[in-house]
Amino acid sequence: MVIIMRSGASESHISTVRKEVEARGFEVVENRGKENVVVAIIGIIDTNQRQPLIDHFSQMDGVERVTPITKPYKLTAKAAKIQTKIHVGDVEIGNGRFVVIAGPCALESPEQLMSAAAGVKAAGAAMLRVGIYKPRTGPYAFQGMEEEGIEIVHGLKGEIGLPIVSEITRPQMVEKMSEVVDILQIGARNAQNSDLLKEVGRGVRPVVLKRGLSMTLDELMQSAEYILSEGNPNVILCERGIRTFETATRNTLDLGGAAYLKTVMTHLPVIIDPSHGTGIRELIAISTKMAVAGGFDGLLVEVHPKPWEALCDGPQSLTIEKFGKLMSELKRIAPVFDKAI
Amino acid sequence: MVIIMRSGASESHISTVRKEVEARGFEVVENRGKENVVVAIIGIIDTNQRQPLIDHFSQMDGVERVTPITKPYKLTAKAAKIQTKIHVGDVEIGNGRFVVIAGPCALESPEQLMSAAAGVKAAGAAMLRVGIYKPRTGPYAFQGMEEEGIEIVHGLKGEIGLPIVSEITRPQMVEKMSEVVDILQIGARNAQNSDLLKEVGRGVRPVVLKRGLSMTLDELMQSAEYILSEGNPNVILCERGIRTFETATRNTLDLGGAAYLKTVMTHLPVIIDPSHGTGIRELIAISTKMAVAGGFDGLLVEVHPKPWEALCDGPQSLTIEKFGKLMSELKRIAPVFDKAI
Amino acid sequence: MVIIMRSGASESHISTVRKEVEARGFEVVENRGKENVVVAIIGIIDTNQRQPLIDHFSQMDGVERVTPITKPYKLTAKAAKIQTKIHVGDVEIGNGRFVVIAGPCALESPEQLMSAAAGVKAAGAAMLRVGIYKPRTGPYAFQGMEEEGIEIVHGLKGEIGLPIVSEITRPQMVEKMSEVVDILQIGARNAQNSDLLKEVGRGVRPVVLKRGLSMTLDELMQSAEYILSEGNPNVILCERGIRTFETATRNTLDLGGAAYLKTVMTHLPVIIDPSHGTGIRELIAISTKMAVAGGFDGLLVEVHPKPWEALCDGPQSLTIEKFGKLMSELKRIAPVFDKAI
Amino acid sequence: MVIIMRSGASESHISTVRKEVEARGFEVVENRGKENVVVAIIGIIDTNQRQPLIDHFSQMDGVERVTPITKPYKLTAKAAKIQTKIHVGDVEIGNGRFVVIAGPCALESPEQLMSAAAGVKAAGAAMLRVGIYKPRTGPYAFQGMEEEGIEIVHGLKGEIGLPIVSEITRPQMVEKMSEVVDILQIGARNAQNSDLLKEVGRGVRPVVLKRGLSMTLDELMQSAEYILSEGNPNVILCERGIRTFETATRNTLDLGGAAYLKTVMTHLPVIIDPSHGTGIRELIAISTKMAVAGGFDGLLVEVHPKPWEALCDGPQSLTIEKFGKLMSELKRIAPVFDKAI
Repeated sequence: MVIIMRSGASESHISTVRKEVEARGFEVVENRGKENVVVAIIGIIDTNQRQPLIDHFSQMDGVERVTPITKPYKLTAKAAKIQTKIHVGDVEIGNGRFVVIAGPCALESPEQLMSAAAGVKAAGAAMLRVGIYKPRTGPYAFQGMEEEGIEIVHGLKGEIGLPIVSEITRPQMVEKMSEVVDILQIGARNAQNSDLLKEVGRGVRPVVLKRGLSMTLDELMQSAEYILSEGNPNVILCERGIRTFETATRNTLDLGGAAYLKTVMTHLPVIIDPSHGTGIRELIAISTKMAVAGGFDGLLVEVHPKPWEALCDGPQSLTIEKFGKLMSELKRIAPVFDKAI
Repeated sequence: MVIIMRSGASESHISTVRKEVEARGFEVVENRGKENVVVAIIGIIDTNQRQPLIDHFSQMDGVERVTPITKPYKLTAKAAKIQTKIHVGDVEIGNGRFVVIAGPCALESPEQLMSAAAGVKAAGAAMLRVGIYKPRTGPYAFQGMEEEGIEIVHGLKGEIGLPIVSEITRPQMVEKMSEVVDILQIGARNAQNSDLLKEVGRGVRPVVLKRGLSMTLDELMQSAEYILSEGNPNVILCERGIRTFETATRNTLDLGGAAYLKTVMTHLPVIIDPSHGTGIRELIAISTKMAVAGGFDGLLVEVHPKPWEALCDGPQSLTIEKFGKLMSELKRIAPVFDKAI
Repeated sequence: MVIIMRSGASESHISTVRKEVEARGFEVVENRGKENVVVAIIGIIDTNQRQPLIDHFSQMDGVERVTPITKPYKLTAKAAKIQTKIHVGDVEIGNGRFVVIAGPCALESPEQLMSAAAGVKAAGAAMLRVGIYKPRTGPYAFQGMEEEGIEIVHGLKGEIGLPIVSEITRPQMVEKMSEVVDILQIGARNAQNSDLLKEVGRGVRPVVLKRGLSMTLDELMQSAEYILSEGNPNVILCERGIRTFETATRNTLDLGGAAYLKTVMTHLPVIIDPSHGTGIRELIAISTKMAVAGGFDGLLVEVHPKPWEALCDGPQSLTIEKFGKLMSELKRIAPVFDKAI
Repeated sequence: MVIIMRSGASESHISTVRKEVEARGFEVVENRGKENVVVAIIGIIDTNQRQPLIDHFSQMDGVERVTPITKPYKLTAKAAKIQTKIHVGDVEIGNGRFVVIAGPCALESPEQLMSAAAGVKAAGAAMLRVGIYKPRTGPYAFQGMEEEGIEIVHGLKGEIGLPIVSEITRPQMVEKMSEVVDILQIGARNAQNSDLLKEVGRGVRPVVLKRGLSMTLDELMQSAEYILSEGNPNVILCERGIRTFETATRNTLDLGGAAYLKTVMTHLPVIIDPSHGTGIRELIAISTKMAVAGGFDGLLVEVHPKPWEALCDGPQSLTIEKFGKLMSELKRIAPVFDKAI
């Protein structure tokens, strides 16, 4: 529920309203628009509590109107639900843990897969990420091992011993992919592919939804709503950098926006992808530490046994060794932020 | 073929190279990079001419190296082919005509379809645009009439008497949609959906490919290359506004970029969509006149019999009457730019 | 004055309001916000007419409230005044003429100045542009001839025989510069330098105010308001390209935004700078034709006798010959848009 | 010095070059361009060491050429100098300390100044920030107390007991401002005002240089070079958010870019301004923790005794109480990152 203050409402009116809300045991977030100040009530409101609250606050000085949360993402919005926790195997995302999902951009061979899996597992990763289908900018770039890759992962799943996250690009693949992977990823290019969003929404697997290159947080919430509204509540949002005028880094990692997303907008877990977010190997450890300090729910990071031989994203992939160093640093700093690794 | 000048090459060296190229009957375009000046040779080069040219220019003063056009879009690039001309019914796109494609954002009913079709046809439109599938930002917005819509268009095709342009959103729909519409449109949200791009590339219908919200011209060329590389040469590129910091207009219509696309980058026809490009009814006539002056190949514009009842994009749709006025203005000004309407 | 419709007001309510406004002889512009439709009344409203209008429209169905134009730019806003016309010598800007201001990026020598002036004058330019002070990105780039340049221009003013436009960068230079140049230009980097804006606002010379690299149209209006509010009404706004993610062109020339600025926002003349707006010589003629078709008031274009020897902006400067060709084209097409050159 | 690898150089060639550089005791940073991989040598190189290094690496496999650091910012570049440390009173910026600079957006009265100063000092801030001159977007917004404000600060300087940081907007004010404040701040709007940059470069006070709204890191380096090249080596760079398409936050705080700036580009201290960077009070504590985790040198944060009465930036200002809580959190987490507060 949000309380829209009159344009020109005094700060004392606004703070009185805040206090009143907090007195009822709710958290408050203030949004300042050009015209109005909006006081957002964070937390769940029992349906029978709703009307009395509307009546009460509508009459307070400086209040223009009180409205339930806006429609476009009623299931995804913070006010709709307490924090979502997603269980995959014995891993829980959305609670006190900083879940590290690591692995190569693309599956290249059974050997590469196993050496990557063994490496990230030994270093303490919670899940393995690996690309089977690779949507690329141009037709002449490596497009992934596709069907053959599915067979490889299927055959090695037992040995890998980690939950697997992999990207899906076509609605008709949801069922087959769901048999071999534990979490379906929707990439930046497909973040507004509504047919695909609806289909994973009807599926049984949790979904990592990446923010599109130039997607507002509002639009990301609406894409998530496509999935939730089809019945699948297990969505993890991923900030992976947006496109701006700055080109020193591959993208601009919007950590402030992601913090707003997690703190104000939604009850869904939010994770960070520093590999695509910066595109520069040297910045990944720093960005990851900032992600832990920001209170996010996890990490999606590219790790490759031999980045210099990688068929994609080599320059932004960590070696197993560098990843190991990063993991021990994370274990050292996470407790200060009440996070487990 | 492009001639890369040495960093620091003198302007006289550059102009000598230009003259040499022009002396051989080629057009020239200069691109200035941070490091190097690149002299691009525009026009077709016979394969047996290629090596001699490379040898000749490589030896000239100030030249660093000479290379055939870069791989990522070898079929789409200007140098690959003379101007592409696409025939749909008796309409030709890519030649001297400014092809006006007009109609409602979405099909709403048989009556609405026929009144829109009759209206734009009477005003002189060359083709009808109408949305059967509407990919929307959120799940609660009208998603189009879908299957039912296909039946309606199928039944009325004869009466409409104009070629029809309509958006496609799923690979598996290409065949069915191709039976009822004359040109398949790929929207901004799917502009990097490689599965869809490949599938229309295997199809029989020409394709209008819209530029994504934050797609560089280079990426648009690569998306087009997906289609061409599958065998379909009939692609029309559409500038429909990009996302920037400016919000006074819905998007920023990149007419300068579109001019670069048509003049320097590609042999494919380029059309302009002022409806999405500005999002403001009052700017559509002005933007359209600028598109004619810019030498583009056509227009994709939203026209609705009753914009105030439209299920989508009402605010940016022209009435039949306003569209009629625009058409007569276009007929008046087009000849000055050697264009037919 | 603007009429804010209630969120969810029906299209028939909106059109009734429009008709009522038009019936009173006013032009109307509709702005569609996320929440509300705003019907803006364009044209001057006598003070004694104001309250009756507010009372009348406030009571109509679907109207939320009626407000006089928003404060931040009450002098610059369209509603404040009829079209501003600025006289410089025998040139009038803001009326039926497309005023071409041409010349070199920077003054380099008396010879270069005279050959440029003679060339653009012969080709039919209305004014000469030339940079005496050049604010540059870095300290090691040519910063202009500065004081020495002022002397040169002062000495040759008589022979030049064209009004001169030149950039000013410091408040304390306004008086001295005003003695030698006819129009003071404020560049993109100083577009929000409020001390400089106030000072030229107290000066006697008309001002060309360029839009900053990432300035919204709203902010550009507020910068203009700095000048008008100090008493100088003679301001010309210049669109010169904004910074976006696209790098194929040097900047993104926002012709749609400029059209919104001129049509909806302000009574000040609006001109276009295709040289900085695209940064590519090959696009200048096309962009200029689009500017004429867009109904703008003029052009600011870089022309240099020998671009390959220019100390700045050579790559985007036209030769005198190319500029001559462009001028004859403009003379041919301008009449179709009721413009004189 | 940077080693440019040939386009298409193998990863093994690249890693051999890296090892060779590291073997000589230098740190290495890899930059991946579209065309080439660049291996940058970080750290100081003795002039007599330079040529031998160039000769040696130029001959290695896969190397195209070796060049000393590019001109536009030879003094500001990382390679030019070891980490810059700036002393102000007994505070040192650029070493192991996270320097917190806190205070109100604007000076409003002696009482407000003293209560703000006392509050932030008690909470443990290292310096006081306060605006005397306020460049604003529009002329009708509060412009600061100006001359009167200087007198107030001058009179209270002794009582305040903290070094003072304040913005300067005009070249001719440098001397006078330098008498009352300890660090001169150049704001985002003046970040490319070369006259002002040169003038503070000739001054005696350290300078906080804020990144412009749409300034690339490369341009920020060049603005800093203006100051250093005039003789003032004491520059602190400040990331305060850039303008992007996202509007949920006031600006997009580019922590990844700032990390690149500090790690790869320059030896100057880099601080973060989360107040302007996010514009939302609720995000300031989170952003600050991320800044500590990112290894930055300090913080510029807005704190006001009564934000609801603030004449500017109230919504993004912390109360003294909230600031106090933040400071104690920082003291708890900073040691994990080897930082003192």
